[in-house]
Amino acid sequence: MPDAASTAISPTRQDDFPEWYQQVVRAADLAETSDVRGCMVIKPWGFGIWENIQRYLDAMFKATGHQNAYFPLFIPLSYLEKEAAHVEGFAKECAVVTHHRLEVGPDGKMRPAPAAELAEPLVVRPTSETIIGATFARWVQSYRDLPILINQWANVVRWEMRPRLFLRTAEFLWQEGHTAHETDREAIEETFQMLRIYERFAREYLALAVYHGEKTESERFPGAVNTYSIEAMVQDRKAVQAGTSHFLGQNFAMASGIKYLSRQGTQEFAWTTSWGASTRLIGTLIMTHADDNGLILPPRIAPAHAVILPITPKPEHRAPVLEAADNLKRQLSEISYAGEPVRVEIDRRDVGGGTKNWDWIKRGIPIRLELGPRDLAQGTVAVARRDGPAKAKEFLPIPELAARLPRILEEIQSGLQERAREFRDRHTVGIDSKEAFYDFFTPRNSERPEIHGGFALAHWSGDPAVEQQVKEDLKVTIRCIPFDEQLGPDQPGTCIFTGKSSPRRVLFAKSY
Amino acid sequence: MPDAASTAISPTRQDDFPEWYQQVVRAADLAETSDVRGCMVIKPWGFGIWENIQRYLDAMFKATGHQNAYFPLFIPLSYLEKEAAHVEGFAKECAVVTHHRLEVGPDGKMRPAPAAELAEPLVVRPTSETIIGATFARWVQSYRDLPILINQWANVVRWEMRPRLFLRTAEFLWQEGHTAHETDREAIEETFQMLRIYERFAREYLALAVYHGEKTESERFPGAVNTYSIEAMVQDRKAVQAGTSHFLGQNFAMASGIKYLSRQGTQEFAWTTSWGASTRLIGTLIMTHADDNGLILPPRIAPAHAVILPITPKPEHRAPVLEAADNLKRQLSEISYAGEPVRVEIDRRDVGGGTKNWDWIKRGIPIRLELGPRDLAQGTVAVARRDGPAKAKEFLPIPELAARLPRILEEIQSGLQERAREFRDRHTVGIDSKEAFYDFFTPRNSERPEIHGGFALAHWSGDPAVEQQVKEDLKVTIRCIPFDEQLGPDQPGTCIFTGKSSPRRVLFAKSY
Repeated sequence: MPDAASTAISPTRQDDFPEWYQQVVRAADLAETSDVRGCMVIKPWGFGIWENIQRYLDAMFKATGHQNAYFPLFIPLSYLEKEAAHVEGFAKECAVVTHHRLEVGPDGKMRPAPAAELAEPLVVRPTSETIIGATFARWVQSYRDLPILINQWANVVRWEMRPRLFLRTAEFLWQEGHTAHETDREAIEETFQMLRIYERFAREYLALAVYHGEKTESERFPGAVNTYSIEAMVQDRKAVQAGTSHFLGQNFAMASGIKYLSRQGTQEFAWTTSWGASTRLIGTLIMTHADDNGLILPPRIAPAHAVILPITPKPEHRAPVLEAADNLKRQLSEISYAGEPVRVEIDRRDVGGGTKNWDWIKRGIPIRLELGPRDLAQGTVAVARRDGPAKAKEFLPIPELAARLPRILEEIQSGLQERAREFRDRHTVGIDSKEAFYDFFTPRNSERPEIHGGFALAHWSGDPAVEQQVKEDLKVTIRCIPFDEQLGPDQPGTCIFTGKSSPRRVLFAKSY
Repeated sequence: MPDAASTAISPTRQDDFPEWYQQVVRAADLAETSDVRGCMVIKPWGFGIWENIQRYLDAMFKATGHQNAYFPLFIPLSYLEKEAAHVEGFAKECAVVTHHRLEVGPDGKMRPAPAAELAEPLVVRPTSETIIGATFARWVQSYRDLPILINQWANVVRWEMRPRLFLRTAEFLWQEGHTAHETDREAIEETFQMLRIYERFAREYLALAVYHGEKTESERFPGAVNTYSIEAMVQDRKAVQAGTSHFLGQNFAMASGIKYLSRQGTQEFAWTTSWGASTRLIGTLIMTHADDNGLILPPRIAPAHAVILPITPKPEHRAPVLEAADNLKRQLSEISYAGEPVRVEIDRRDVGGGTKNWDWIKRGIPIRLELGPRDLAQGTVAVARRDGPAKAKEFLPIPELAARLPRILEEIQSGLQERAREFRDRHTVGIDSKEAFYDFFTPRNSERPEIHGGFALAHWSGDPAVEQQVKEDLKVTIRCIPFDEQLGPDQPGTCIFTGKSSPRRVLFAKSY
């Protein structure tokens, strides 16, 4: 456990942000790399966060009329090829199944059986537009069959050469919504509705501060007409694309043959959308809220809100303190926070109080409750908040704790959200010259982490060549053409790169 | 819609059981085959059943101390080979990933890029003992780290030459529990505990009547020391293995190196278990409860308990009837059944009342509520139960319906369970001679479905050669050495095949 001057996570954010991130993931027991290239093991505490993400997002999807279904893991290569831009976009990341049996080879070792080679290779889904499109084509005959509003929770695979836990892994977990509509207007409304749901979920549950807007052509989903995203700023001032919503026009409907008999009696192609959010949200959460002592979890998404740490200096204390811990847990579980029972854990491990305390600090649980023999005598409990200093604790009578708990949790939730918003706003800067722009994105130091300006709002004429040049020069991309009101009115101006006229400012940043 | 003499599903169970099953799956909108060999699409109504199965089983797992986690989809071939019996058991069913990129080939078509061939092929998990074992080996150092109680909800792939929706598909959804323990006794207790959970879940939620017991050596999970299962009898009197629990001894711990420092300071291998249940449960549910009009769903597992069917003979009826339907839904949703709010749907489709009614009969919803202009005037609703005749309905004042609804649902639930139990008991017969045994399993007719006796309880000496012979002659296997008390006392006797002494009767059946 760290002394007063040091921190639980080494290196600190200041010293080496990427390595700090890996260490937080490890120290918080969230996930680890496996021996399978780029594939991670999500550990129970990390998976608990994902279960909450699933639960709340799923409820939001269902409240807007979507139903869950499940489609094949494998996509025939010929399906992927139906949409030219789509296959081109994903070809380099595809895991390909070529055999359906193993056998003992001449060297006595197992190998794919040559006689069991597939006539057509199967791609492990990198996304499911084409396989779901083929299914929708069977489901849709008439305008009466529309809209189709489907969501799938699934694993997908995009081969990854430089994996990073949660943010970029070869296999990841996600949800992918797929809908088909009678008109372009309806499909566009659906696309925007789901973008707003992602924005709201990120803000209200994950306490992230995201901008949302439209992607430029070069950043579009392969095969989409328009892509929209939410973009979070994390603590090294880079962006993370944390959710996307695509208006697919009739591209995939034509590729898959999703046709319907219209109200006018004509055959028409449907208009489709797709939208997804993944385990990447967990990486974004960590990079946004964690500090040099480890993870900090917003209460609404935390697998547990509070942990009771029984302090048993002598063996004879163990039984009465554990009994009191059980009682306290029972009492607190009857309280509700954000419409649900408060989630309480007891750490019964037979290890020292300091170790226990620091383990839970690193795991980011919102509240720690120390309960020892002295507390039993006095009817109190020592309350420590993860958003306060590691050593600070307040002794509260149990009824007072019970009365204040929901308020404390909400303070933590809104405090984290406020801090994230404030950080993002402080590092989102209007830039009005090319020189200032290049300076903004040039690291202030030669060390890690590179400290640069953050998000730049700048005028751009719309020229893809300029976008490409900026990417090559600075590794900076246009994250989105933002919709956010807080960025001020959407006014025309002059492109800082070309001097041409610009319809509005767009958001530039380095990103994960 | 069928007339009085015919049925909604054609053929009937009597005429062609396998084809009847396919037609029920289709008519109930549960699932369909995809163009990917052996892979199914699970449609929203079918997936709704799976979501309930997940929710209730998950709660039972968590109540017994298990936590969810997630492990890689891909298993390096060398991992699978670590346990000899294991790889031998699964080799013929493995989908193998050999490439990680596509490229345009000389013929202008996409192909797996030869330069992106993997040094070591990856197998799409048919089950995860080896990849999870490798992870546990990292997690376990000392006896203090044990037990590890983990569950994973996932998709798995076992290549299938003769797929049948839900019962046998190349890809299926399941949960797989994996635990590691300090002692053999603890691991065996865990194995039994999970078997009991499956038995209880099948009985209380799915209204199945299952036997549970130990598998013979030839039917064991590849690599297990002992396998236990629950075995349901479906309406053609065949068995479906609907859940399994394996005591793995130290086999996988040795293969994966799961070692711990014992209380005595020695290095020991852990004792592990695994246990799983899959979307096969849905197939079992259908084959157990459905009738010649389609699916019949036990209320506890049904995606919806009741559907409101608005009857609007004239356009001017539509608004008031739909408003009344919304009110009725709101009222009923406030009632609770089996500890949860009653789940109510409204069928707002603009199609005829007869079509709507039969659609929901075929989908197996427990209760249909017809609401028309006359009902509005009288304050009544026409209540029809799926476990009653298709045309029977009772007109109830709404307050009376509300008061009686939980009781009606529980009557349906327990009625289905009772019927399944009675059917199973009636067709479970003690057999005391080889001749009677062969006769019992010889179809009474030359038509489909073959009608044979059902489950036979017979003495068997334990000789695997006899087991093999019976399998070859009759396609009959030993489903389990049963634990069920209702099968009477466990007494020694004489093997009906060999005349040798037999420790006890075992359960023989044909199976899916």
